[in-house]
Amino acid sequence: MAKWFTEAWSAGVRFSVKYARKEYAERTPHQKIAFYESDELGRFFTLDGVMMACEKDEYVYHEMMIHVPMSVRPDICRVLVIGGGDGGSVRELLRYPQIAAITLVEIDERVVTLCERYFPQTSRGLRDARVSLVYADGAAFVANAVDAYDLIVVDSTDPIGPGEGLFSAAFYRDCHRILASDGILVNQHESPYFAATRREMIRAHEKIASLFPVARVYQAFIPTYPSGHWLFGFASKRLDPVADFRAGVQDAADIRTRYYNGEVHRAAFALPNDVREALAPKSK
Amino acid sequence: MAKWFTEAWSAGVRFSVKYARKEYAERTPHQKIAFYESDELGRFFTLDGVMMACEKDEYVYHEMMIHVPMSVRPDICRVLVIGGGDGGSVRELLRYPQIAAITLVEIDERVVTLCERYFPQTSRGLRDARVSLVYADGAAFVANAVDAYDLIVVDSTDPIGPGEGLFSAAFYRDCHRILASDGILVNQHESPYFAATRREMIRAHEKIASLFPVARVYQAFIPTYPSGHWLFGFASKRLDPVADFRAGVQDAADIRTRYYNGEVHRAAFALPNDVREALAPKSK
Repeated sequence: MAKWFTEAWSAGVRFSVKYARKEYAERTPHQKIAFYESDELGRFFTLDGVMMACEKDEYVYHEMMIHVPMSVRPDICRVLVIGGGDGGSVRELLRYPQIAAITLVEIDERVVTLCERYFPQTSRGLRDARVSLVYADGAAFVANAVDAYDLIVVDSTDPIGPGEGLFSAAFYRDCHRILASDGILVNQHESPYFAATRREMIRAHEKIASLFPVARVYQAFIPTYPSGHWLFGFASKRLDPVADFRAGVQDAADIRTRYYNGEVHRAAFALPNDVREALAPKSK
Repeated sequence: MAKWFTEAWSAGVRFSVKYARKEYAERTPHQKIAFYESDELGRFFTLDGVMMACEKDEYVYHEMMIHVPMSVRPDICRVLVIGGGDGGSVRELLRYPQIAAITLVEIDERVVTLCERYFPQTSRGLRDARVSLVYADGAAFVANAVDAYDLIVVDSTDPIGPGEGLFSAAFYRDCHRILASDGILVNQHESPYFAATRREMIRAHEKIASLFPVARVYQAFIPTYPSGHWLFGFASKRLDPVADFRAGVQDAADIRTRYYNGEVHRAAFALPNDVREALAPKSK
């Protein structure tokens, strides 16, 4: 009999994927993790029953998280990744020779260890000499950090469970403090479609926009995330993601992308009216 | 007990919507039609078990189908809509005072009649004096048509069942013949994500590109269609949808849109690399 993994995208909408077998599952000290093998999406893994990444489309999320900021400030050298224990964001960062040091702060060491075993597509760069792995709570890490980073990537789960602190005002304030003056903060920013994720989208944006002179939201087609309309935040003290976009950064490093390109970069910031309005500053 | 409508997006992926009640269902001479009431998506209707439109997001599809061509050639006057019996495309067209005549060719009269009863959100304009309703097969209609249209809107179902002829080379040739020299053909163009719809996307594009000097594909976020990454085709004998885009056409007619805007127009044509490559002319 066919086995189906089902995720509740909202109270009234479900997304189901037929799988051939559950490859591995474990309850870590932080969450439940499971790896599945499917015909349609290839290998995929879940945290607390929520799809994190699948072979078929994880490249969209990771390319859009990394190549957007790298195309705005190509000389990024020191990077902090919060979350992202699957290694997908690190993999994209490692394609740039100018990046000298990546610190990955993942709360759950088991995510790293198990993705290295069961999800090599994203995790293969995690032992690169330029990568420092830190197993700690991201919010606590940035609260105590004193280094200056050129790029902070908040590659978090949803703001429920372990990811919650990565959506707090205190966390964004700490990111602001440890970001270099030309630094960029990117974060996974939920979806505008369903009521719950839309609320989180608005809350995250309000907090970030109250701290950063530049706070923009951009989007990508990610069919395995709720609604398929997924958002990212881009915040900085000075650089604008569209006005300061530099074409050809990937070409210079001979980086081939499957989703990202210069037109997609600009287009990602063209939000539909109803998203624009939801994110517009509220008049008092 | 909760009732769920489930659609197979592919052999291995399903999309399910919880509904409060099935409002009405009927087997017409052409297909099965059903109307559901749900908390999450509002009222929605299906043809042969495939979601056609829901109250929550039908505006995305219909705005993108109509406001894109109207922003490239604002003086469009005579329009032919093939399919689209729910009336959503007609509703958007009627917002332009310059449009004098809309012919809607729907194969299934019951779709029109039942949408007027159960789906007023899209169908309310169908009895407007500018609209002529023709109940006929769209492919046969264009084969015999001699009039010249400024805009042809192919608002079809998938290329299985009644919609099949609306993806044939003969159909596109007839559209080309009855299109005015500055005319535009737009069509629903499937999705690049799942193998089956991707194949149809490529086939439709190859046929259209072999006939029309300008053949472009554009995209929108439509969460209730398979993958949420949905495509439209834009074809013409001369006009380019980006180079010939005119800003502010909707403002001039005081048309407010929920999804479409000028930035979204341009962005819609910025395709990800893997879609670009799938649609690129094959070298022999």
